[in-house]
Amino acid sequence: MRILLINPNTTASMTETIRRAAIGVAGRDTEVEAVTSLMGPVSIEGYYDEALAVPGLLERLADGESRGAQAAIIACFDDTGLDAARAIAGIPVIGICEAALTAASLIAQRYTVVTTLERSRIPIEALVRRYGAEGRAKVRAADIPVLSLEDAASGAIDRLKREIDRAITDDRAEAIVLGCAGMADLARALQAEYGLPVVDGVSAAVKQAEMLVALGLSTSKRGAYATPGTKIYKGALARFAPGG
Amino acid sequence: MRILLINPNTTASMTETIRRAAIGVAGRDTEVEAVTSLMGPVSIEGYYDEALAVPGLLERLADGESRGAQAAIIACFDDTGLDAARAIAGIPVIGICEAALTAASLIAQRYTVVTTLERSRIPIEALVRRYGAEGRAKVRAADIPVLSLEDAASGAIDRLKREIDRAITDDRAEAIVLGCAGMADLARALQAEYGLPVVDGVSAAVKQAEMLVALGLSTSKRGAYATPGTKIYKGALARFAPGG
Amino acid sequence: MRILLINPNTTASMTETIRRAAIGVAGRDTEVEAVTSLMGPVSIEGYYDEALAVPGLLERLADGESRGAQAAIIACFDDTGLDAARAIAGIPVIGICEAALTAASLIAQRYTVVTTLERSRIPIEALVRRYGAEGRAKVRAADIPVLSLEDAASGAIDRLKREIDRAITDDRAEAIVLGCAGMADLARALQAEYGLPVVDGVSAAVKQAEMLVALGLSTSKRGAYATPGTKIYKGALARFAPGG
Amino acid sequence: MRILLINPNTTASMTETIRRAAIGVAGRDTEVEAVTSLMGPVSIEGYYDEALAVPGLLERLADGESRGAQAAIIACFDDTGLDAARAIAGIPVIGICEAALTAASLIAQRYTVVTTLERSRIPIEALVRRYGAEGRAKVRAADIPVLSLEDAASGAIDRLKREIDRAITDDRAEAIVLGCAGMADLARALQAEYGLPVVDGVSAAVKQAEMLVALGLSTSKRGAYATPGTKIYKGALARFAPGG
Amino acid sequence: MRILLINPNTTASMTETIRRAAIGVAGRDTEVEAVTSLMGPVSIEGYYDEALAVPGLLERLADGESRGAQAAIIACFDDTGLDAARAIAGIPVIGICEAALTAASLIAQRYTVVTTLERSRIPIEALVRRYGAEGRAKVRAADIPVLSLEDAASGAIDRLKREIDRAITDDRAEAIVLGCAGMADLARALQAEYGLPVVDGVSAAVKQAEMLVALGLSTSKRGAYATPGTKIYKGALARFAPGG
Amino acid sequence: MRILLINPNTTASMTETIRRAAIGVAGRDTEVEAVTSLMGPVSIEGYYDEALAVPGLLERLADGESRGAQAAIIACFDDTGLDAARAIAGIPVIGICEAALTAASLIAQRYTVVTTLERSRIPIEALVRRYGAEGRAKVRAADIPVLSLEDAASGAIDRLKREIDRAITDDRAEAIVLGCAGMADLARALQAEYGLPVVDGVSAAVKQAEMLVALGLSTSKRGAYATPGTKIYKGALARFAPGG
Repeated sequence: MRILLINPNTTASMTETIRRAAIGVAGRDTEVEAVTSLMGPVSIEGYYDEALAVPGLLERLADGESRGAQAAIIACFDDTGLDAARAIAGIPVIGICEAALTAASLIAQRYTVVTTLERSRIPIEALVRRYGAEGRAKVRAADIPVLSLEDAASGAIDRLKREIDRAITDDRAEAIVLGCAGMADLARALQAEYGLPVVDGVSAAVKQAEMLVALGLSTSKRGAYATPGTKIYKGALARFAPGG
Repeated sequence: MRILLINPNTTASMTETIRRAAIGVAGRDTEVEAVTSLMGPVSIEGYYDEALAVPGLLERLADGESRGAQAAIIACFDDTGLDAARAIAGIPVIGICEAALTAASLIAQRYTVVTTLERSRIPIEALVRRYGAEGRAKVRAADIPVLSLEDAASGAIDRLKREIDRAITDDRAEAIVLGCAGMADLARALQAEYGLPVVDGVSAAVKQAEMLVALGLSTSKRGAYATPGTKIYKGALARFAPGG
Repeated sequence: MRILLINPNTTASMTETIRRAAIGVAGRDTEVEAVTSLMGPVSIEGYYDEALAVPGLLERLADGESRGAQAAIIACFDDTGLDAARAIAGIPVIGICEAALTAASLIAQRYTVVTTLERSRIPIEALVRRYGAEGRAKVRAADIPVLSLEDAASGAIDRLKREIDRAITDDRAEAIVLGCAGMADLARALQAEYGLPVVDGVSAAVKQAEMLVALGLSTSKRGAYATPGTKIYKGALARFAPGG
Repeated sequence: MRILLINPNTTASMTETIRRAAIGVAGRDTEVEAVTSLMGPVSIEGYYDEALAVPGLLERLADGESRGAQAAIIACFDDTGLDAARAIAGIPVIGICEAALTAASLIAQRYTVVTTLERSRIPIEALVRRYGAEGRAKVRAADIPVLSLEDAASGAIDRLKREIDRAITDDRAEAIVLGCAGMADLARALQAEYGLPVVDGVSAAVKQAEMLVALGLSTSKRGAYATPGTKIYKGALARFAPGG
Repeated sequence: MRILLINPNTTASMTETIRRAAIGVAGRDTEVEAVTSLMGPVSIEGYYDEALAVPGLLERLADGESRGAQAAIIACFDDTGLDAARAIAGIPVIGICEAALTAASLIAQRYTVVTTLERSRIPIEALVRRYGAEGRAKVRAADIPVLSLEDAASGAIDRLKREIDRAITDDRAEAIVLGCAGMADLARALQAEYGLPVVDGVSAAVKQAEMLVALGLSTSKRGAYATPGTKIYKGALARFAPGG
Repeated sequence: MRILLINPNTTASMTETIRRAAIGVAGRDTEVEAVTSLMGPVSIEGYYDEALAVPGLLERLADGESRGAQAAIIACFDDTGLDAARAIAGIPVIGICEAALTAASLIAQRYTVVTTLERSRIPIEALVRRYGAEGRAKVRAADIPVLSLEDAASGAIDRLKREIDRAITDDRAEAIVLGCAGMADLARALQAEYGLPVVDGVSAAVKQAEMLVALGLSTSKRGAYATPGTKIYKGALARFAPGG
């Protein structure tokens, strides 16, 4: 089984963190291919970055699918470009926010997502509603830039922990969801430290991708995910034209 | 990895159907133990059967956990006794309605659950709301008793197909969810016949149980699933007293 | 008019408290029969106790109905087994959480339920949603075991009052709902002390049961409350088989 | 116990129908005083009539309360002026839509309100949401003017029955709620004819008013129903000034 | 273009404040006619005042429409009588709460309404739900009587600012909505002082009224806003009878 | 006043239709600049086209703002790229779906959006929820490609009318919203033909943009629309890097 793991942030070191988390949980028969987008922001922080990360991500998706991937994961907690990816791909696609909320909902009735920046809080709240976790999931921002997670001296981990403390005390969180792909390596240690379930979306997505392949399920092509028909695209994005 | 699959219907032939569906998708390292409840209704059809199936199911759960199961599945689409099971068990527990909706939501925006009897329709609609699929999932009843699914001459399959037709035409369903554990063997053939995703909750639950074990996640014991303290139970159910 | 009042907690002294609250408000022509379940937990605190209280409660319900009760009340704020009771009974059945929220909604737009233990908070929040009081009713736990309400030296009343204070200040509660059958004797005194409406579900349920009998209304047998058909039940619960 | 029953429609013959329904269910110790508003539309059909029925209704309420009523009922299915009445009155006030939905919710999970005119359908749907019955209650209009219910030759009853038929077939209604005070005399006969619960709001309101008085509960004066302070009112409505 | 601006509070000095706010934003071709209701409370504070302000407001509306107004605005933040006005008028009618929420939603995802008295908070929360802003808009009361806004020595502005401070800090409000027509003159100064958008409903309503006239749109007369038919009204309000 | 009207579909003839609709309602002092995106799909039909239309649209937005536009409109009914546009722009930005629902909500309680293709139906339903019109607005697809609206021989208008007929009959729509920028020229004629309000989002957006400028309101930069900080963008989209 071959799973494509796309980092839509164009920072290769972050992809390596994500890849390790994925490999750590993948089944014996699963091959994980982790790729970095070649086009767009070095880190996705808010709506603008998110929109401009999509073409690069779709490019990587088309490439991975053509080389035989059976399922794809979008490794950004905004679930960047998920709908477009599902429409164009012939393989199932999973977002890590979706995967993390799905897993957390199986083990807790109330939980808190701790993400990076305040500007990502409201978009993630919208995802919480989209995925039906409204009333279960709260969202907190730790005020840490995405790439500061790679810098041990940045104090990012301390800020993250401060919000976990507040989630436990103020939100009465039963579990914590890590709200950024760049936190994928922290789940196990935090779970041990806090003594409550800590969910990482990257590893959850790997197991859900495995599930879909094992069950023979893929995105329905009836409705809004119907394959786009042949159409002309103009300008610098012309090569993205479907059916071309 | 050892997964306990409990059929809370006290009909062993139904357990065998469920077991086969589970084994068909289980990972190479997964051992599935399928057990039949020894106490309660031969089939669960509506609220009354459901309530009286719970003690038998909890008995099987305690037994399976004591013998080393790492996760448990409740194989009835009403998710019978799921909350009680999560409170008492030290291992994660998954309901097949929950698992089916979770899987369907990853591959379709609108889908229809087709269940057995009209009296199960409203309880399943309540589960749809509980699991956050309101607005995505419709529920239809095919007017077939649960055990008629085991009788090829009953016409049950024809009635099931008639509702799938209606779901596609009237609900514009993008996928179908089979709303009874006794339908677990039908998913693949129906998917091939109709050309749209057909989700079986038993096999979906197996993969989600594998996910939780692989991720090291179990039911949070903060909140409503806290382990019950020692307490006296009176009468014929005295042996169920927690901490006894 | 004859109303059956079932305490699903198997503690007779608690039934006496409940009975007195019921008699205090019952109409001149109403006979209240208060019975204690013979099977299950001495107090219902959370999902596990709740599930195992149901068979004992259903037994008492069948017995009371056969002896001529015209309506039944389930005197536990979790509305334990309410759906199963409605399906099997030929008489109307009311839960005290349902009755309390119904009464509170007639006299206040925002109110707070104060219950016993934290583990009961989320189940009651689910009932609040079920009964359409979401957005009106908040739920607080006073951290008092159910049976401590019978022990004047336990400090339970002080803890209850502390939460009422918080409800008034922090939730801007316009009324208080007492979230445990064991608090039925406290409503009048607390109402006098705090100068705002305090609702007890037991007495509210008595008047609503009287209403249904007076109006000639009983549970509709169309839909999910249709009377269960004849069916085999196995094992220790075989005698519960419907139509047997 | 003394209950004030106000018909905000200025048609005395309609008040007589309402009064008879109320008396038929009132307790032995209950005195029902039915009064007709002296100011406003002869029948309330839609938003405009409703708004102009309020002063006449408030006048009757103040008068009834001053003469010793312990609870009041507003006998129009739009729950005309309910909030204003609750703010100004020192006694509890119940609307018949509220009372009918409350009673129906105790005996059915899905039910249909059948009202008079299409222009009343959306206002009643708003009440359904307000009272938390969204998802349970559908609303249908039988296309009959309110006062045609008093005219046996109008065909109004036939049209009403046609919508009940549709409610049972198309909505899978488990119970019917009569959506106009002028239908109060029809509930028992329709219940017998159709074999499912039929709820009349007038009689339901009487029993709920009795409940509130028996329980010693009245509208909370904390929040939006706080008693209005002394204030000048200008023009023809000057005599309505509170505290005057 | 001629827009009728009705102050349903019977205080002429307040109308002048509202009129100035309206004129400040009206288009070059727009004539704003600001009128004061002649009947009802000097200030609208809560449900009772609101109900008794409606006849006076409807009188002014009918008069203004007969003299050629093309759209009308109800200048009270409770959107007093809006539904009745829309049913009877042949021109579009806009409420200032509706207009303010509409404008705020175009420029902010989360915002806070700051109104006058606590008793107005819950009615405005109901409007927030009605207009689809639930989850976006919070409501706070500054504890200031409506007419105190006209008295510089009342301290009203300080109290208003204290709640704006809290909205920014505690609600993380992105914008502020002024929740009373009497605050119409404050928006620009507060926006400059706080550096975030401050929305006044009166001026927003003027521009939305201009929009409807420019687009040739008026209240649909299908459904609940259908023009009332001819009917007898009794007593002091007889002259309000439609079609008379 | 200068308003930028961006057609994110890269088809200039469609821009001309949109431009004419805008000019027809713009105020005397308003200059409308209509521009066509230079990069991306010739028509936006579904999620994939939508995602790839965003960079071209953002380019046009940045250009227009730098040349002095005071407000911008995105003329595609999917409100393509609206969040990214609001984050990066210093001027207010309005989507035409948002504008159309906003206008329709001022004149009707229930209305139906008629859009082009089935694959756009669910994305527009998501916008209906986002803008708080859930429960008011239904969405129908007429099964017409976007560009067929420019071809009188395509039968597109007939199909559109067939859905309007169904909306009036089956949905009891009080008003119709045209669900595609390419229909902007049809609103007046359809309104005359059907005798109910027909709303075009392009012209509604022009008036709302004028409103925001007149009121001095712009997108709040607190929260998720905070201006993006300086950041590196890689590959073909490097020139989109904010702060560059």
